Amino acid sequence: MSQRLFARWALLPTGWTADVALSLDAGRIDRVELDATPRDTDTHAGIVIPAFHDGHSHVFQWELRGHTNFANLDRPADDFWSWRTQMYEAADAVEPGRLRQTARECYAALRASGYASVAEFHYLHHDVGGRPFDPPWATAAAIADAAREVGIHLTLVPVAYVRGGHDRELTPSQRRFAFDDVNAFVAYTRDMRDALAGPGVSVAIGAHSVRAVPAPWLRAIAAEARARRCPLHIHASEQPRELEECVAEHGRTPIRLLHDLGFLGPTTVVVHATHPVDDEVELLAESGAIVCACPTTERDLGDGTLDAPRLLRAGVDVCIGSDSQVGVDARDELRLLELNCRLVSGRRNVLIDPARGLARPSATLLRWGAEAGARAVGLDSGRIEAGRRADLIELDAPELVDHEALLRWVDRWLFCGEAPAPRVRVGG
Amino acid sequence: MSQRLFARWALLPTGWTADVALSLDAGRIDRVELDATPRDTDTHAGIVIPAFHDGHSHVFQWELRGHTNFANLDRPADDFWSWRTQMYEAADAVEPGRLRQTARECYAALRASGYASVAEFHYLHHDVGGRPFDPPWATAAAIADAAREVGIHLTLVPVAYVRGGHDRELTPSQRRFAFDDVNAFVAYTRDMRDALAGPGVSVAIGAHSVRAVPAPWLRAIAAEARARRCPLHIHASEQPRELEECVAEHGRTPIRLLHDLGFLGPTTVVVHATHPVDDEVELLAESGAIVCACPTTERDLGDGTLDAPRLLRAGVDVCIGSDSQVGVDARDELRLLELNCRLVSGRRNVLIDPARGLARPSATLLRWGAEAGARAVGLDSGRIEAGRRADLIELDAPELVDHEALLRWVDRWLFCGEAPAPRVRVGG
Repeated sequence: MSQRLFARWALLPTGWTADVALSLDAGRIDRVELDATPRDTDTHAGIVIPAFHDGHSHVFQWELRGHTNFANLDRPADDFWSWRTQMYEAADAVEPGRLRQTARECYAALRASGYASVAEFHYLHHDVGGRPFDPPWATAAAIADAAREVGIHLTLVPVAYVRGGHDRELTPSQRRFAFDDVNAFVAYTRDMRDALAGPGVSVAIGAHSVRAVPAPWLRAIAAEARARRCPLHIHASEQPRELEECVAEHGRTPIRLLHDLGFLGPTTVVVHATHPVDDEVELLAESGAIVCACPTTERDLGDGTLDAPRLLRAGVDVCIGSDSQVGVDARDELRLLELNCRLVSGRRNVLIDPARGLARPSATLLRWGAEAGARAVGLDSGRIEAGRRADLIELDAPELVDHEALLRWVDRWLFCGEAPAPRVRVGG
Repeated sequence: MSQRLFARWALLPTGWTADVALSLDAGRIDRVELDATPRDTDTHAGIVIPAFHDGHSHVFQWELRGHTNFANLDRPADDFWSWRTQMYEAADAVEPGRLRQTARECYAALRASGYASVAEFHYLHHDVGGRPFDPPWATAAAIADAAREVGIHLTLVPVAYVRGGHDRELTPSQRRFAFDDVNAFVAYTRDMRDALAGPGVSVAIGAHSVRAVPAPWLRAIAAEARARRCPLHIHASEQPRELEECVAEHGRTPIRLLHDLGFLGPTTVVVHATHPVDDEVELLAESGAIVCACPTTERDLGDGTLDAPRLLRAGVDVCIGSDSQVGVDARDELRLLELNCRLVSGRRNVLIDPARGLARPSATLLRWGAEAGARAVGLDSGRIEAGRRADLIELDAPELVDHEALLRWVDRWLFCGEAPAPRVRVGG
C-alpha cells in the first residue's frame, strides 16, 4: 500500500532537512523528495527520524525487573554474581505460554519507546533439566508470536551455552541453556530459522560468552554466521572476573581472544565491551564489529561505564540494548551513553564528532541508535534513503521557526525525555 | 475540613503497615489509626507514603534545560565552567513576568512527580546591571505567586552573592545577584519574609558558595539563620576547582571552612558535597547538617558521584533537589543515589542500612526523600504521624497479597519508574 509521509523536518543521512516527503510502499522507502509541497492526502509529521533498534534483549528478565534491589544483611556484599543467582531463579520458572505473555508486555513497552526491532539474545532453549521441547524451538516460537502480535521486528539470536566456566560444569539452572554438541546446536539454529523466519522475524546466531563457550565452538559458530551472512552476537568484557578467568584459560582477554578466533567481523555484535584492554578497541575498529551498550543494565548490575568517546574516536559504532529490561526507554539508553561519561570524567559534551563536523552529542546518539542498531539486528534500515525499510519515528512537534530551534527541541526531547512520545512505524 | 484517608498500605515511621486510616484536618494529620476498617465516606488509596521535598531548585534554569548539549568544535573541551557561561545568558534574560510563567511550568512538573514542596535557591535579586526592583523582592514574589497557583509549598532561600571569587570582581551577569553590604542583604531577606511568608510560602536564608561569599558574611548569615530558626543553605564542594580556590584563600576545603565559621548545624543544608575531603563527612555528621544531592544535575554538569553509602554509614541525612531542572522526576533523583554508586563501585544494593535493619535501598531512599527533604525546606513533615503536615503521596496500587509483594511493587515503582504517577497531597 502506497503512502506519502510529509515531514516538516527529517533527519536524512546528509543532516536535518526541511520539507521532506517520503514515498512509502510495502514497508520500504521508495523515494525521498526534497523541498516537497505538502498534499492533503499526505500523512503529516512535525519531525521524522530513523527508528531505533534494540540490539540486546533478554525478554524473560522483564518479570524480574526492579525485584533485585535488596541485600542480605548477614552477607551484605552484593554484585553482578549475586544478582545472577536471582536471575537464574527467574529462568527456572520460564515456560512457553507464560513467556509469550511476558514478551508481549515487554516488547510493547520497547516499541512504544522508539524501537522498531529487537534482537533477542536467546539461551532458554530447553525445558527444566535440559529436556528438549517439542518442537525444540518452542520458547523461540513463543517469543516470535509475541513480536508479531506487538508489531515489532524480531531478530532471534539463539546463542550457544556449553559449560559453567573453564573447568566448571553446568549448574542445574544452566542445563536449560546448554547443548553438548556444536553440530547439534548449529542444526537447531537452522531448524529454528526454517520454522520461524519470515516477515517480521529473522534468525541470527551467537555464543553466550567466552566463559560459557569453548574456543572450538566459537570458531564454528563464527563460520556459520559468515556462511549465513547473519549477525553474530556475544557478551564480552562485562565484568572484571570474566577477564581474569579468560586470561587464566586462554592467556588473553576476551576481545583479543575473539579476534584471534576469527569471531570479530562487520556483522559481529560485542555486547557490553565495558572493559576493553590495551589495543582491543583498535581490534574492534579494524574488524568493523559493533559494540552493543546496555547502559541502564550496566549501571544496575555495577558493570561500569562504557568509554563511548574512545570508541567514537576509534571509529567503532555503538548500538543500544534493553538487556535486563530495568530500562525500556530508548532515549534513556542513548542519553546515558553521553551522561554517564560526564559523571565519571568531569567533562561535558564528550560524544561530539569533529570528523563528521558534528558538535552535538545528539547527532552521534541518533545515528548510533538507528544505524548501528540496524546493523546489529541485521536489517536494511537505520537511514532515511530510498530502498531502505521504512522504520521511522514520527514526532508531533510544534512549528519550529528555524534550524537552531529544531536542534534545541530535539536535544530537549532526547536529553530530558520531553513529550511527545514517539510514534513508531515498523517497516519491512 | 476533616477527611479520613484509608490506605491498604502506609509507610509509617515503624515501617510498612496494612489497613491504616489517617484522619486529616486543615492540612495536618490528626490521628493515625492502625488495623482500621474502611468506611464508604473514606478517600481510598492503595499505598500512602510521605511526599518528597525538593531541597534545591533554580527555577529560572527550566528554560535552559536540554539546551546546553553542544560544544564548539574549535574549542571542544567542555565542562561545568563553560556551561556556566550559557547559564548566565539565561539569567540575564530573566524578568518577573516571564519568571512567574516559567515557575508555573517548572513547579507543576515537580509537584506531579511527587514533591510537596520546593526550596528555591534564589539569587536573581535585582534587575539587569544590579538595579533593585520595586519592590526589591519582585522576582521572589513572582515565584511565590506561581507556587501558590500550582499548589506546591515554596521555601524561598534568598542567598547572598558578593564577588566573582577570591580577588575576583563580579562579572556583568553576576551584578543581578549581588549585594555589597551584608546588613542590606539581611534586611532584604527580612523584608522578603515580612512581605511574602504565609500559608504556602516560607522564607529561609543562605549564601551562594564560599567562592562567592567572604567569611565575615558567612558568619553573619549563619547567625541570622540561628536567630530565625530557619534553614540555612549553601552550595559546597561541587567541583574540584572550587576546592582548590578555597584552599588557596582560606587554607582549608569548603566544608571544613563552613564548620570553622559556625555555618554547619542541624538546619544547614549543604548542596552537593560531592567532593568531601578527609574528615569533612564526620564534621557534617556531628553538626546534624543535611546534604542535598542533585544527581541528574551533578551528572549533566560532570560534578561526580556522591558517596551516599559513606554518608549513610556516618549518619548524615541526604535529601534530593532538582537544581538545574534537567530532571524533574523525584523518583529518578532518588534512584540515582543508589544506581550511580553501582556504576562507579561495581557493587549493588549499597544503600542498605543495617543499623536500622533495612536491607532494601528503597527504604533509605524513601526516608531520605521525605524526612531529610522536609528538614531541608523547614517543614514539619516527612513522616506519617499525628501532628505533622499531611504532605502525602497516594498511589493506586493493585491488591498486593502480602508484605513481600508490596516491597517488590514499591521497588519496581521506585527503581523502574513504573505507573502509577503519584497523586500528591500538599498539606499545611
